[in-house]
Amino acid sequence: MSTVTSTTRNGVDTEKLFATLDLIKEQPELARFQFRASNRWLGGSHNRSTIQGFYAAGGEDTTRSEPFVIDAGEPAILIGDDTGPNPAEYLLHALAACLTTSIVYVAAARKVPLTSVEPVLTGDMDVRGALGVDDEPRNGFERIGVSFRVTGDAPAEKLREVVERATARSAVYDMVTNGVPVAVEVSTD
Amino acid sequence: MSTVTSTTRNGVDTEKLFATLDLIKEQPELARFQFRASNRWLGGSHNRSTIQGFYAAGGEDTTRSEPFVIDAGEPAILIGDDTGPNPAEYLLHALAACLTTSIVYVAAARKVPLTSVEPVLTGDMDVRGALGVDDEPRNGFERIGVSFRVTGDAPAEKLREVVERATARSAVYDMVTNGVPVAVEVSTD
Repeated sequence: MSTVTSTTRNGVDTEKLFATLDLIKEQPELARFQFRASNRWLGGSHNRSTIQGFYAAGGEDTTRSEPFVIDAGEPAILIGDDTGPNPAEYLLHALAACLTTSIVYVAAARKVPLTSVEPVLTGDMDVRGALGVDDEPRNGFERIGVSFRVTGDAPAEKLREVVERATARSAVYDMVTNGVPVAVEVSTD
Repeated sequence: MSTVTSTTRNGVDTEKLFATLDLIKEQPELARFQFRASNRWLGGSHNRSTIQGFYAAGGEDTTRSEPFVIDAGEPAILIGDDTGPNPAEYLLHALAACLTTSIVYVAAARKVPLTSVEPVLTGDMDVRGALGVDDEPRNGFERIGVSFRVTGDAPAEKLREVVERATARSAVYDMVTNGVPVAVEVSTD
């Protein structure tokens, strides 16, 4: 069925993946990563993040020759000019992307060939919270729904196991469901 | 000092902002919003979200004629081809963008003219969690640091009050610090 001579499955180099896992098992200090984003206000609800360097595996990663540049905004009904997805929509994207990648990597490691991974996410919000109109509704989403379509050359039960394991290991799923301590510093100079 | 005839401050139409707040106070049912993201796997760690429609103020919003299309990836050290920021970096961007916009809106409402809002975010992670090598480290960031530079035509104390209020009302800050219930459904057809 599959090509046993190739180490690439689902577009993931599994030989490299397993070598990375072995290396981190032997030298856990290499597992310390730090990711970063620098944001700048451009007027109204328009702002822009640049994302480039990060710390990984004992040193500063310098493989990205150019930064990623991503714009955020708000639609007209939230007093914006739609200069990009809004921040809450980016949070849904972060969660969707992390779940998709986790599924693909877990499936690659477990020798499950995938044909499609397509999550649709919804987030329900009462904007009275974020707009400061009422103290009762929370500011963020009350709930997030993730509806996955996952297909591949494996029984449905196996595909469901992959999704379950991937969800249990997803970095963003962990953060969005359990929360993260955030420390805020302000300089006004 | 400021132009009293203009209702736009910091690029925010404050007349429209206050009218929106008044309307939502009178008709709280208009505050029900739903945002969405549809994601699709493109191979390996490359996946893409499309973001367009949302529900707002009693109906489906149709003001976006084209979807926003945003790509995610992983750097080489995480077995990817750097096809976009990774999901954890997008979470930092979502948080940064939400804090920036919240500061700008709060300042506009409080008649504080801003000249710059520049947050730098860091997220520290032990990737043994997400890679499934060790059960002890959590999957996501252990902590997030936000370092703001905020300047404007107001005393430092006033600018700090704006940042404090904005943080207390930010939708993504609420979600990232407190977590959100997430329901996952899977179809394998």
